Amino acid sequence: MIRVLITGGTFDKEYDELKGQLYFNATHLPEMLRLGRCRVPVEAETVMLVDSLHMTDADRARIAETCRNSPEARIVITHGTDTMVETAAAIAAGAPGKTVVLTGAMVPYAFGSSDGLFNLGSAISYVQSLPPGVYIAMNGTHFDWDNVRKNRDTGVFEIVR
Amino acid sequence: MIRVLITGGTFDKEYDELKGQLYFNATHLPEMLRLGRCRVPVEAETVMLVDSLHMTDADRARIAETCRNSPEARIVITHGTDTMVETAAAIAAGAPGKTVVLTGAMVPYAFGSSDGLFNLGSAISYVQSLPPGVYIAMNGTHFDWDNVRKNRDTGVFEIVR
Amino acid sequence: MIRVLITGGTFDKEYDELKGQLYFNATHLPEMLRLGRCRVPVEAETVMLVDSLHMTDADRARIAETCRNSPEARIVITHGTDTMVETAAAIAAGAPGKTVVLTGAMVPYAFGSSDGLFNLGSAISYVQSLPPGVYIAMNGTHFDWDNVRKNRDTGVFEIVR
Amino acid sequence: MIRVLITGGTFDKEYDELKGQLYFNATHLPEMLRLGRCRVPVEAETVMLVDSLHMTDADRARIAETCRNSPEARIVITHGTDTMVETAAAIAAGAPGKTVVLTGAMVPYAFGSSDGLFNLGSAISYVQSLPPGVYIAMNGTHFDWDNVRKNRDTGVFEIVR
Repeated sequence: MIRVLITGGTFDKEYDELKGQLYFNATHLPEMLRLGRCRVPVEAETVMLVDSLHMTDADRARIAETCRNSPEARIVITHGTDTMVETAAAIAAGAPGKTVVLTGAMVPYAFGSSDGLFNLGSAISYVQSLPPGVYIAMNGTHFDWDNVRKNRDTGVFEIVR
Repeated sequence: MIRVLITGGTFDKEYDELKGQLYFNATHLPEMLRLGRCRVPVEAETVMLVDSLHMTDADRARIAETCRNSPEARIVITHGTDTMVETAAAIAAGAPGKTVVLTGAMVPYAFGSSDGLFNLGSAISYVQSLPPGVYIAMNGTHFDWDNVRKNRDTGVFEIVR
Repeated sequence: MIRVLITGGTFDKEYDELKGQLYFNATHLPEMLRLGRCRVPVEAETVMLVDSLHMTDADRARIAETCRNSPEARIVITHGTDTMVETAAAIAAGAPGKTVVLTGAMVPYAFGSSDGLFNLGSAISYVQSLPPGVYIAMNGTHFDWDNVRKNRDTGVFEIVR
Repeated sequence: MIRVLITGGTFDKEYDELKGQLYFNATHLPEMLRLGRCRVPVEAETVMLVDSLHMTDADRARIAETCRNSPEARIVITHGTDTMVETAAAIAAGAPGKTVVLTGAMVPYAFGSSDGLFNLGSAISYVQSLPPGVYIAMNGTHFDWDNVRKNRDTGVFEIVR
């Protein structure tokens, strides 16, 4: 059994056609797992639905605590890309001994041309095959939480050293 | 560096609007890697573009040989789901010592509601994280080549024993 | 009030993921009208769901009769493109005095890159703005039923003379 | 020959994946006409690419002047929905004697679930079948420019009286 914690991010943003703005309504995760014909037992839990630029230390503490308290040893977290690395650090400090994989998207799943489905397939796979630790799965690969940064100019995750 | 061998299958089928039939034109793999913002170095090679129900023993021998002769130790193969297990067996016999992951799709990528992008993200991830062996990556998980079958009634891959 | 008669055709074909074939399940018309945010009162009726190459004279007679018996004076018909002109002729003979617009698609709506939504918007508009007569609405324009043919080589409708 | 004047609006908005915002890049009109297999001769001209809430009186005067100076008697204008009616009024005053049809979208074409393709099919059809005048084509129907308003609560265009 894999637990998937949903925290928001571009992944789950939608278009509000009356206001002409992006917003959060509900997660697309179940629909994406259905589209991917995923048959791995998954327990999905929406912890919050926020833009990761607005995420507070209290939010990160809550995510880490949710990881620690989850009965599952394998956890995927959908998260905004901008502060994904900060949350990964909070989890590494607060929820040791589990395989935790954070992922997200550069384009909302609802917008058709999203990397979200690819990244979800990647995260679901890494969480089953990597040893305990906290990882980021983006751009088709995985990074250790303490050796990765998002390059804001290119939108790509890269090794720090 | 990962080598991706393209062999056809539902994954790459398109709609011929003049004949009203499904057919193979060219692989969608590069477009899918671009959509997934995959940054892993990938060398893609179209070995054939066939429906796996029409694949012959000679075709499978050729795929196994291509695996054996590839300089890369990590190989993803896109393949029709109907005889994916048979090809996996041929590779296991003919190309030992490499991590080979076969994947495919139940719905063509070109048709919008495909599981192809999810499966590709999964296969690209498993091939980087699993030890040498031949695997099938479908439905969000991975199977050893000698312990899996496609259930033709449900379209789902499952463990044999 | 506009009546929409659904008869099948590429428009409504889907992909059977277990058999790997195209087939008819149910019409996508209500979903398409919702996507187009159509607010014109529409009464949709599935007369049949067939490939127009398989349509018989009895089928065409039934469609013409349904047009004649419909209380609405404005009727859109979704139809396979291959024999759309033959059915238009049957309606012209059998259901005079109404504005009837036949339309269809070269690619199934379910396959993402379809012309179906464009054609539906076109047909719904022509049926409200043209005088009584039988027309084909394809490729962004409208044709009189007795001055049009489908060019099988290009997939495009064109004036006969 | 139909002239299509492009002015921006939701129709043509895209998602900037680095900034996480909506923006204008280039029009999707040629791609949409290709997808719709439109064979009507069309001359497309990008007059501006702006959110219609930011459109000035000078902008509207420029659009009306472009209509007046166009050699074509039939003109489609893609436009943001919020002030489409104001621009229609400016054209009615400034470019008499032509058939001008304004259309737009509630959801960007680039976001997959857009009404844009349906509306474009509708506008292209009305402009060929309606007598001279200025019209708005939205929600599957057409409105005279001086008898329509956008209901901001529902996002739907409706008759004023």
